[in-house]
Amino acid sequence: MRVVVIGGVAAGPKAAAKVMRLRPDADVTVIEKGKFLSYAGCGLPYYISGAVREQAELMSTAIGVVRDAEYFRSCKGIAVLNRTEAMRIDRRRGRVEVKDLSNGGTRWLEYDKLVLATGARPVVPPIPGKELRNVFVVHHVEDAEAIRTAIAETGIRKVVIVGGGLIGVEMAEALSRRGVHVAIVEMLPQVLPMLDWEMARQVEKHLIEKGVSVLTESRVLALEPGQLNDTAVGRVRMERETLPADMVILAIGVRPNIQLAETADLEIGPTGAIQVNAHMRTSDPDIYAVGDCVESTNLVTGKPCFVPMGSTANKHGRVAAMNICGENDTFPGVIGSTVCKVFDYTVARTGVGEEEARAAGFDVATCLNSVPDKAHYYPPAKPLMLKLIADRKTRRLLGAQATGPSDASKRIDVAATAITAGLTVDQVAKLDLAYAPPFSPAMDNLIVAADILRNKMDQQLRSLTPMQVKRMLEAGEDVFLLDTRSPAEYEQAHIEQSTLIPLGVLRERADEVPRDKPVIAFCKSSLRAYEAARILHGRGHANVKVMDGGIVMWPYELAD
Amino acid sequence: MRVVVIGGVAAGPKAAAKVMRLRPDADVTVIEKGKFLSYAGCGLPYYISGAVREQAELMSTAIGVVRDAEYFRSCKGIAVLNRTEAMRIDRRRGRVEVKDLSNGGTRWLEYDKLVLATGARPVVPPIPGKELRNVFVVHHVEDAEAIRTAIAETGIRKVVIVGGGLIGVEMAEALSRRGVHVAIVEMLPQVLPMLDWEMARQVEKHLIEKGVSVLTESRVLALEPGQLNDTAVGRVRMERETLPADMVILAIGVRPNIQLAETADLEIGPTGAIQVNAHMRTSDPDIYAVGDCVESTNLVTGKPCFVPMGSTANKHGRVAAMNICGENDTFPGVIGSTVCKVFDYTVARTGVGEEEARAAGFDVATCLNSVPDKAHYYPPAKPLMLKLIADRKTRRLLGAQATGPSDASKRIDVAATAITAGLTVDQVAKLDLAYAPPFSPAMDNLIVAADILRNKMDQQLRSLTPMQVKRMLEAGEDVFLLDTRSPAEYEQAHIEQSTLIPLGVLRERADEVPRDKPVIAFCKSSLRAYEAARILHGRGHANVKVMDGGIVMWPYELAD
Repeated sequence: MRVVVIGGVAAGPKAAAKVMRLRPDADVTVIEKGKFLSYAGCGLPYYISGAVREQAELMSTAIGVVRDAEYFRSCKGIAVLNRTEAMRIDRRRGRVEVKDLSNGGTRWLEYDKLVLATGARPVVPPIPGKELRNVFVVHHVEDAEAIRTAIAETGIRKVVIVGGGLIGVEMAEALSRRGVHVAIVEMLPQVLPMLDWEMARQVEKHLIEKGVSVLTESRVLALEPGQLNDTAVGRVRMERETLPADMVILAIGVRPNIQLAETADLEIGPTGAIQVNAHMRTSDPDIYAVGDCVESTNLVTGKPCFVPMGSTANKHGRVAAMNICGENDTFPGVIGSTVCKVFDYTVARTGVGEEEARAAGFDVATCLNSVPDKAHYYPPAKPLMLKLIADRKTRRLLGAQATGPSDASKRIDVAATAITAGLTVDQVAKLDLAYAPPFSPAMDNLIVAADILRNKMDQQLRSLTPMQVKRMLEAGEDVFLLDTRSPAEYEQAHIEQSTLIPLGVLRERADEVPRDKPVIAFCKSSLRAYEAARILHGRGHANVKVMDGGIVMWPYELAD
Repeated sequence: MRVVVIGGVAAGPKAAAKVMRLRPDADVTVIEKGKFLSYAGCGLPYYISGAVREQAELMSTAIGVVRDAEYFRSCKGIAVLNRTEAMRIDRRRGRVEVKDLSNGGTRWLEYDKLVLATGARPVVPPIPGKELRNVFVVHHVEDAEAIRTAIAETGIRKVVIVGGGLIGVEMAEALSRRGVHVAIVEMLPQVLPMLDWEMARQVEKHLIEKGVSVLTESRVLALEPGQLNDTAVGRVRMERETLPADMVILAIGVRPNIQLAETADLEIGPTGAIQVNAHMRTSDPDIYAVGDCVESTNLVTGKPCFVPMGSTANKHGRVAAMNICGENDTFPGVIGSTVCKVFDYTVARTGVGEEEARAAGFDVATCLNSVPDKAHYYPPAKPLMLKLIADRKTRRLLGAQATGPSDASKRIDVAATAITAGLTVDQVAKLDLAYAPPFSPAMDNLIVAADILRNKMDQQLRSLTPMQVKRMLEAGEDVFLLDTRSPAEYEQAHIEQSTLIPLGVLRERADEVPRDKPVIAFCKSSLRAYEAARILHGRGHANVKVMDGGIVMWPYELAD
């Protein structure tokens, strides 16, 4: 069996290696346009920051062997042709024309099965000046190398990152750690569009705390040369302002590489990526496609989506190999699980966001919650800001988002598992998660949040989001904003127009809470506010609501 | 509605508070025999170690308010009588006789609903000398205080911990951090019986590395006074040896406090704990029981179990309160999820262990795996040793155990969720877990392990456990033990009787592998060994197996 794999970075080598393990007698060839094989694209920001010291580490195995062509030959039995480009697929005759980029020579490789692992490429928008020196994307090892060199050799002091998505914020941290000033410019009203707005605001606050300038709703019009050197970038011009920049990173996103598939008349999906079935097979039964060039099914909405991820690529590779070798394996889809490190914060999400859930027709319930990620008396405990999204009708968990200087990654992976399994928030609330003070509170953050959602769905808790409260205040609605924290907490920071009545004295001072207007209670995390609402409810107050997430998750400015 | 709750530590106050939130007009009284309320029993080792500085932190809310009777009155609307013991239940008349321990006075409290949250108590075996000074259990705040005082004031240098379970190993770390020498004495052949033997061995090795003496299969016969002071402990006498000890910690386990329930003729379950239905109701419809005094259902085996946990207690409290207030809520059961910190190691497990699974009638498949817990090139990455247990028939995941200086907690909580949801290992292998280099490898440890199990179940991988290999070697069986690592790795440490042929040269040197005897291949983690097995299989070697977990998880001594 002759198998040709086009693409030598992630999904391609995985498919090739698994084919060889299943069929040690197979004849497997991997074609890679670039020089480097099996490199960790996701690791580039950490190489740029210096956390990863050597380029070679990005393309080595866990025991330090560089994955070059010789490694693939001797350890995996795979022939790898790097610096070789696949030019076209001749489906009728089962062959691929390849070009040796070192000498320009072309030849045909015959296949019984073909695997497309052509990956994605960074979007470079048609901004004037994008060809100036010191304007980079972060995609290949060579990009990272060039950025490192520029910083080390040319005295870069100010960097503008265009795009506040995953790569953008990871690069903001990486470059800040190299001692340069970083500004993120983002067209949307928020960084990290994978998050709901109020969650993204928390990350934005943290970026600013760490010295990063964040300009949202800002469109870049042009990159302009500096005054001293007209070949290198010097300024980023936007509609409302112009920023100085010795370096610009374009981190707009990626698009799938589908040219080969398109010209071979393979089916392209609605997202613009290659369409495959659950067996990772394209519209040609002898051609598979895997990794960042294919589209997936979102398991929550059932709709096609394009979410390129190194984790998904590896799963794709295995599934394709199994089916190529006559076994049966399927890839069901993804739920958009993502995590990234942004300075001291972990940012993670899974499933669908609030708007996405609504757009998909769910009857959405949400909650915000912030409690420590470990037993609160255990010193390393840090607040974890968590949002859950559920469907009122089925009570299924649909999405989860978490951030803070705390263990968000664990909660999001648990939520991802629960969402994939179709668990309801009632079932999530009963999960037997492992507890000890150094690892979680006795009631894990996810369980507390699930219980809050249950209280809401069961009408035990009536709540408003901080955005709803803000709109009411701005519209001048006559509401009583009740802060149930302690005087000391109030002194530190509070929300304007709020009235302090600590929970401990609320029973005595309940008469101070007006009965003729809506009451909105909050505290630090809104647990005490919930107690307060129940006390007031018990005394006949008809309209008491609790503000989701408390003052910790208030996404606006505070007074002090 | 009059609700009386007996027990003021974890499940009791939770039930009481939730009743008040659901029914702000209820009349709720909590009886607590001890002085302290709502204290973090699980936090005691961290108070003893000094990680938690003040006793008050153990009984404070997250914002630092001490949960005393006044707190319960003013913030929760609950009457709390501490230092008050419940003497007997008069079910016919719906009342409890209580005794004020400060003055000995008794009186009757009437209830409409009664909640038993009587907890558990440490097992104190009938060892001679157990009444000597400086012999402690670790259960109440007072125990922790006494241990701290003894260490600070009486120059304790050597401590023997009797019992190598959870509390035993947590105390080994806590006391080592106070600068004393610790020995653990355990009757069983391993510490941490919640783990399978080969996993426990890894923890034992780490304890020893950290200077703790570990004596397994050792039974304590007597505690004996020292030579200078005949009222304080000085030695621990066992069958084979005698250890010096200025302090002894008895950490044998706990038993449920069922006396009140028993004398009230409530049903006691087969585990010796109070029997409740899914509504947390005892055999008396007006009496609920929650927390460490009740038995649960193991969701994997369907059998009753006694697994007292602070996390479970909180869930119990909520469920009981909901049902008391006429809502409907159920507690389905537990799967034995546990985590603890042992020096630099996290130790966690969930579901059933290998033997437990076999005893429950499953057709057991297992795998051992050790790869880094983060992208291997990301510097904080550390090995995670993982064992999965599955059922060949249904392919369902049944159990998971993990340890190492790495993020075991996340993987076990994900596994707990997967097991609860009844996921197969095939489904686990396809989970869309959130990936970025600082949080996991591109293929998460759980996914790699699930794929190994799938390879085994699908006969692509034939394997032996390290214990099977050891037995074959000890029995003198004529096997070829093939180490496929590099010469440098072999130099550092290897298994006696093994032959080194690095994977990279195996294709050329395959003739050196005999065809007339069983071949057992291994490497560091057994991923290269798996490649080797496939290569040899491809060349017609009929009997090649891979050793689970590689040399990293070899639980015996190594040669160097």
